Amino acid sequence: MRDLLPDEVRLRRRLLGRIIGVYERFGFEQIETPALEEIDRLIGSEAGDNEKLIYKVLRRGLDEWPTDEAGAVDLGLRYDLTVPLARFYATHSGELLSPFKAIQTGPAWRAERPQKGRYRQLTQCDIDVLGDPTVDAEIELVVATAQALAACGVSDFAVRLNDRRVLQSLVSAAGFPEELTGPVLVALDKVDKMGVSGVHDELCRLVPDGDSPRALTDVIESLIASSESGETLSALPDAVADAVTDDLRSIVEGARELAPGLPIRIDATLVRGQGYYTGSIFEIEHAASAGSLAGGGRYDRMIGRLSGVETPAVGFSIGFERLVDLMTNADFVNEARRVVLLYANADGAAGRQFAQQTAERLRWSGHVVRVEDAAKNRKAQLSRFAAAGYTDWAEVSDDQQPIDGDFVLRALDSTTEGSR
Amino acid sequence: MRDLLPDEVRLRRRLLGRIIGVYERFGFEQIETPALEEIDRLIGSEAGDNEKLIYKVLRRGLDEWPTDEAGAVDLGLRYDLTVPLARFYATHSGELLSPFKAIQTGPAWRAERPQKGRYRQLTQCDIDVLGDPTVDAEIELVVATAQALAACGVSDFAVRLNDRRVLQSLVSAAGFPEELTGPVLVALDKVDKMGVSGVHDELCRLVPDGDSPRALTDVIESLIASSESGETLSALPDAVADAVTDDLRSIVEGARELAPGLPIRIDATLVRGQGYYTGSIFEIEHAASAGSLAGGGRYDRMIGRLSGVETPAVGFSIGFERLVDLMTNADFVNEARRVVLLYANADGAAGRQFAQQTAERLRWSGHVVRVEDAAKNRKAQLSRFAAAGYTDWAEVSDDQQPIDGDFVLRALDSTTEGSR
Repeated sequence: MRDLLPDEVRLRRRLLGRIIGVYERFGFEQIETPALEEIDRLIGSEAGDNEKLIYKVLRRGLDEWPTDEAGAVDLGLRYDLTVPLARFYATHSGELLSPFKAIQTGPAWRAERPQKGRYRQLTQCDIDVLGDPTVDAEIELVVATAQALAACGVSDFAVRLNDRRVLQSLVSAAGFPEELTGPVLVALDKVDKMGVSGVHDELCRLVPDGDSPRALTDVIESLIASSESGETLSALPDAVADAVTDDLRSIVEGARELAPGLPIRIDATLVRGQGYYTGSIFEIEHAASAGSLAGGGRYDRMIGRLSGVETPAVGFSIGFERLVDLMTNADFVNEARRVVLLYANADGAAGRQFAQQTAERLRWSGHVVRVEDAAKNRKAQLSRFAAAGYTDWAEVSDDQQPIDGDFVLRALDSTTEGSR
Repeated sequence: MRDLLPDEVRLRRRLLGRIIGVYERFGFEQIETPALEEIDRLIGSEAGDNEKLIYKVLRRGLDEWPTDEAGAVDLGLRYDLTVPLARFYATHSGELLSPFKAIQTGPAWRAERPQKGRYRQLTQCDIDVLGDPTVDAEIELVVATAQALAACGVSDFAVRLNDRRVLQSLVSAAGFPEELTGPVLVALDKVDKMGVSGVHDELCRLVPDGDSPRALTDVIESLIASSESGETLSALPDAVADAVTDDLRSIVEGARELAPGLPIRIDATLVRGQGYYTGSIFEIEHAASAGSLAGGGRYDRMIGRLSGVETPAVGFSIGFERLVDLMTNADFVNEARRVVLLYANADGAAGRQFAQQTAERLRWSGHVVRVEDAAKNRKAQLSRFAAAGYTDWAEVSDDQQPIDGDFVLRALDSTTEGSR
């Protein structure tokens, strides 16, 4: 655990203020829950490895020393903000708007081994939508979280999207028995670290005989290839129900409608560690960050288990310590370029729309972007923008598909136009 | 421990923002320390009753169940922000400005019995000056804290000021042996609750024979009487060193210079519970709040004990939960009156200064106050102010001593001038 000096607190408060500002503009509302929760609730929450990392608190007023831990411990420090939120909602739903849109920012505690990027006291920034079973909730969470990161000056991040039901279908179609789904997903979660062959070895330890490990890793390998070309949805095997692929498509399309240019892609290898997810899962990654900057998903059963009233729920959590680390990482350069996009064809609104979408894509990467009709004297036009501090330019025309296609920015300077 | 719903969080964040805003304008800087501290540090800090209320955390990775608490526990949740600050400063002083002016806002935990106004997780807002042995530090802390409360809309509070050295001199002069000073102060601390006779009974239990209890309570009784007439300083017995009375006088005068009209008075019965105070102690009270809204004092030995480097230190802590409770208390009415003060003598700057000081005193009580020269047609002048929404008026002249004297506000209404 760390002390935070004035410079660090200033940075953290500024970032938190920006994040909360974005979330509040979407109508999310701040709540707070206590740091301590009952130990039984923390342990029985399908929170994966986090449950092994609980700081446990001794009962007060013990007359004699207990014979075991169960007799000695009644509370624990929360390891995330999701389990407390579920308890909060089970208690207070009658006093809240429905659907309830919560913002939570605050510390959680995990007894991690000390290592780079892992902290024993960590701040989390979560938003959750409780009571909305539709993908509207996912779309808003994804867009709000991406905008919050953008408001902090983070660009060049990417949203990865998957669904637990996709993973369950793949595991089941490969022939694994249902009771192995959990361990198979744990193995699959390591594909980023150990590659497909490493995952295959791990699966063979679970199922030494049979074709299931090979069947699964073959599908995963082809899905990774299709993910790179942006075609995961059409490459999903028939075992995945249409309702699931429809949800994934709706989330991507809906998010891009609200936030044109948002970098979001479906990645069938995304797993996430918590056992409580029931549907969509998502992460935000950044090349200069060791782990994901944000993660979340749908957990439709947790609140019902606590309250007896089934309540759909979905949340997205910014790993605030990762964000702060990224801001202070030498590899993280927020080099905002000033770009003018010249639109060359003046014959149709559809073409100009391409230019606007391209501008939005560049804005998500943190750049300042202006869209202008190309002048006859292009050299004079570019000189004017160079003199006004613009650094790059590009030409966009009706023939291009700017969102998904390649795109070349050229350097602008006051005397010459070079290619870069 | 409580969940906080959106309305409550909004109020709390707004109040915190105002408090921190005032503190930052005085050049204080925010720091943060972890919630968990080593148990030995929490227990050995002379923090009075708070040390009995620690939430203790079980060691991680215990191979076998320990035979006692000492073997089982290594950490505890902090019960205040002062002990962590002392550890922080002992570790980081080389990286900080000197004197260091710290703002800390955050939760502390106390295993209190559930009762009104006591919370097991409570937010504190502290400012501390580390490395300044002069009363300048006290003056700034008192004025900044009073301004922070005023920024939250609290008026009609009063600052009580005392010095541990005054109390020690009184106890010693009454003939108590030095080793009883601690218990005698604990008894004296109850004078608000049980009166002087209750304290006398308690002291007689400590020293069944002899005149010390009566000697002390006689002095206390006369000091209470002199405090009510604002003459505590001159009533202090000779046993109190001149250096101490000089410090108290300097704090009152310095605070009133920075904040004309600030309601501050010396109260020799103020004790405060913590054992670590070495000099000045102070509290802010409000008639509608059960306990004090803020408390603090000088603790010149704590940091030296941790770091080996003697470091003067003084702090003032707002009991944020009390402040929030006050804001939501039906007895708390922030009835801002709009007052016009008519200055009747036009013959001297000194007289007009009385009017301005009177205005400041009323402003500390939350009122809107304008100072105007009295017009010849006073009735017409007052009618104009009544039409502009002013509610009260008074006349101030050179003959009055408005800061300490009595003062009559009269109701203004658009037709008549009545006395109220």
